[in-house]
Amino acid sequence: MDISKRGLDIQESPIRKLKPFADSARERGIHVYFINIGQPDIATPQPVWDALKQFDEEVLSYGPAQGFLELRQAIADYFDSYDIEINADGVVITVGGSEAIHFAFSVVSDPGGEIIIPEPFYTNYNGFAACANVNIVPLTLSVEDGFRLPSIETIAKIISPRTRAILLNSPSNPTGTVYTAEELERIVSLALEHDLFLIADEVYKEFVYDGASHKSVLEYPEIKDRAIVVDSISKRFSCCGARIGAVVTRNEEISQSVLKFAQARLCPPTIEQKMALAAYRMGIEYFVPVQKEYQHRRDVLFEGLKDIPGIVIRKPQGAFYYIVRLPIEDSEHFVRWMLTDFHLDNETVMVAPAQGFYSTPGKGKDEVRIAYVLKEEDLKRAIIVFKAGLQEYLQQF
Amino acid sequence: MDISKRGLDIQESPIRKLKPFADSARERGIHVYFINIGQPDIATPQPVWDALKQFDEEVLSYGPAQGFLELRQAIADYFDSYDIEINADGVVITVGGSEAIHFAFSVVSDPGGEIIIPEPFYTNYNGFAACANVNIVPLTLSVEDGFRLPSIETIAKIISPRTRAILLNSPSNPTGTVYTAEELERIVSLALEHDLFLIADEVYKEFVYDGASHKSVLEYPEIKDRAIVVDSISKRFSCCGARIGAVVTRNEEISQSVLKFAQARLCPPTIEQKMALAAYRMGIEYFVPVQKEYQHRRDVLFEGLKDIPGIVIRKPQGAFYYIVRLPIEDSEHFVRWMLTDFHLDNETVMVAPAQGFYSTPGKGKDEVRIAYVLKEEDLKRAIIVFKAGLQEYLQQF
Repeated sequence: MDISKRGLDIQESPIRKLKPFADSARERGIHVYFINIGQPDIATPQPVWDALKQFDEEVLSYGPAQGFLELRQAIADYFDSYDIEINADGVVITVGGSEAIHFAFSVVSDPGGEIIIPEPFYTNYNGFAACANVNIVPLTLSVEDGFRLPSIETIAKIISPRTRAILLNSPSNPTGTVYTAEELERIVSLALEHDLFLIADEVYKEFVYDGASHKSVLEYPEIKDRAIVVDSISKRFSCCGARIGAVVTRNEEISQSVLKFAQARLCPPTIEQKMALAAYRMGIEYFVPVQKEYQHRRDVLFEGLKDIPGIVIRKPQGAFYYIVRLPIEDSEHFVRWMLTDFHLDNETVMVAPAQGFYSTPGKGKDEVRIAYVLKEEDLKRAIIVFKAGLQEYLQQF
Repeated sequence: MDISKRGLDIQESPIRKLKPFADSARERGIHVYFINIGQPDIATPQPVWDALKQFDEEVLSYGPAQGFLELRQAIADYFDSYDIEINADGVVITVGGSEAIHFAFSVVSDPGGEIIIPEPFYTNYNGFAACANVNIVPLTLSVEDGFRLPSIETIAKIISPRTRAILLNSPSNPTGTVYTAEELERIVSLALEHDLFLIADEVYKEFVYDGASHKSVLEYPEIKDRAIVVDSISKRFSCCGARIGAVVTRNEEISQSVLKFAQARLCPPTIEQKMALAAYRMGIEYFVPVQKEYQHRRDVLFEGLKDIPGIVIRKPQGAFYYIVRLPIEDSEHFVRWMLTDFHLDNETVMVAPAQGFYSTPGKGKDEVRIAYVLKEEDLKRAIIVFKAGLQEYLQQF
């Protein structure tokens, strides 16, 4: 009895699969700086914890499949504070941004359909594509030009009769790139010309720096029936473990269909919806210091890394990641070696090999993703340890 | 731009779609006895609430994709208290039993594969089948013989080359039937003979009455590589809103594959896993009074309904549901009418039309599902109101 082909083929998380080596380093007494995953160290805001403590019911019961109305309204209000008008019925609460992506894939495409995604991309899109049996067609970008989008003509070349949607993730995990209005407009016109949906993963919306601002695909009235935003509180409010996200769209047929998928799994977690409500009610002022902190960390990392001989690094405008090219051949080998064979005064660093963020075979083998999710002091120390490790690695291999 | 075929085809929850009529009845000041859904009124146990209040971290961070080890071990220990030996690595924590079903479908079958399920069945299996693009092949049972399984020969007739698994849900939602060891053995031998997986939804394991006990598919060593148990804390600990379930199996290939699907969605909710841990640590003694309470309710409902002229009702052995046949033609019409046109002293009752629990067209139109999730006093009153409503309905139609 064999398991399914999709069960065999689904990619193991390239980020998580090296975790055992980190665990074993820690067991040997080595301190590991984890800048491999997007787990921020920013404290979850107090109103969120207050909502947890105030939860007071006798029975922990099911909520509505689409999520509590108050939360859906609070999310609509949040969009309104960016001058984006959305009805609470256009918001379906999901179990993390993860489920929102899965629902979006399922509702735009049947099995065998194609979704174009600029690569490198958030590696878990692969998992949802496997779940939904859709094929990701990568649009390859490169570190040299800061992972900017190519011309309309170049993108159009990979559109096929099976293409159902383009997915944009801006600010981007893993590149940090924030697409300009002009870049977005290219995609909008392609969606119109080729009759495609546009899925936008905007979970890092507030993580934009140097005074830049994020433009949502919901700001383009000409694609109001084509635009589907995937959202999440995980990064926005440092609530990764809450598993609260949303599908946001003005296309009623899509929100109705997403609701039917949502009904099958009954409801998102009840308590965390109350916590999320408290988070959204803080208003967008909350992000001002958070944004400042991340911008500073980004600069610290850039200054620390830019002079490494052979590095290719561009300073990104958003999220909290860098993809950098290193003068190495196999970043997975390097990352593992840092955990198994190297330490500097009993400290080492874990970054993420970039290969898992590409779907084109062989791409990203000499690149790593670094997440600036540590406070300045730790980040500076991590940079020192990282550079020492890289230097020793280059001498050995 | 059309949405996907699966997005159009996915069934709207037949239980939830009548909710607006109930809301509107309540707005008119009518008290509705909800015995349509499996939302128990049993208090969530105090240790679970204590775990919530004791949660004290600065950052609500991601947990491991497979769930916290302590919880996986606690679930393994729980099985051990039923003399079922399971390794913690054979337990993957999921977002409710819902996600466990979805993962199980995905891992046993590719799109187009078939899964045999005795009908009437838990209606949300349809949603997960749509998500996973597998086809449910119903094995039709009937109320007259208490929804017992037919002979091996009868079941074998619906097995095809595309059949990948049989799904058993015992104690059953919606029928309350608990399969005997002999019935289980029929399925075990079919799984062996036809090379099939066996998915067992055992979330109502403790809800068995009259001194009966539940036998798990994990108790059959000959199918240890074929058996996948879907589990959940929702009913067991009255924690429906927590969204914590599990896939439990001895087949390492399956648990490894499920883990890869789990990695894509990062992790189950962090706080609820701590709550679930507290629940499992109570031990199975917890269920003794709960079981007694439900057995009593079942008897109250049976006594209250059995003399309705034209009713077909068999007393089930488990879960907290009845499927009964009524002398009506269209139970959906009846259920809606009870909410829109009827009240007795400003009270009415909502039950679930049974049609949504069948996948064979036309089946179950004269049946309803009744959930005995209310305390005796309320249940008795609900029966009086229900009978008065049915009588008036039969006079009118």
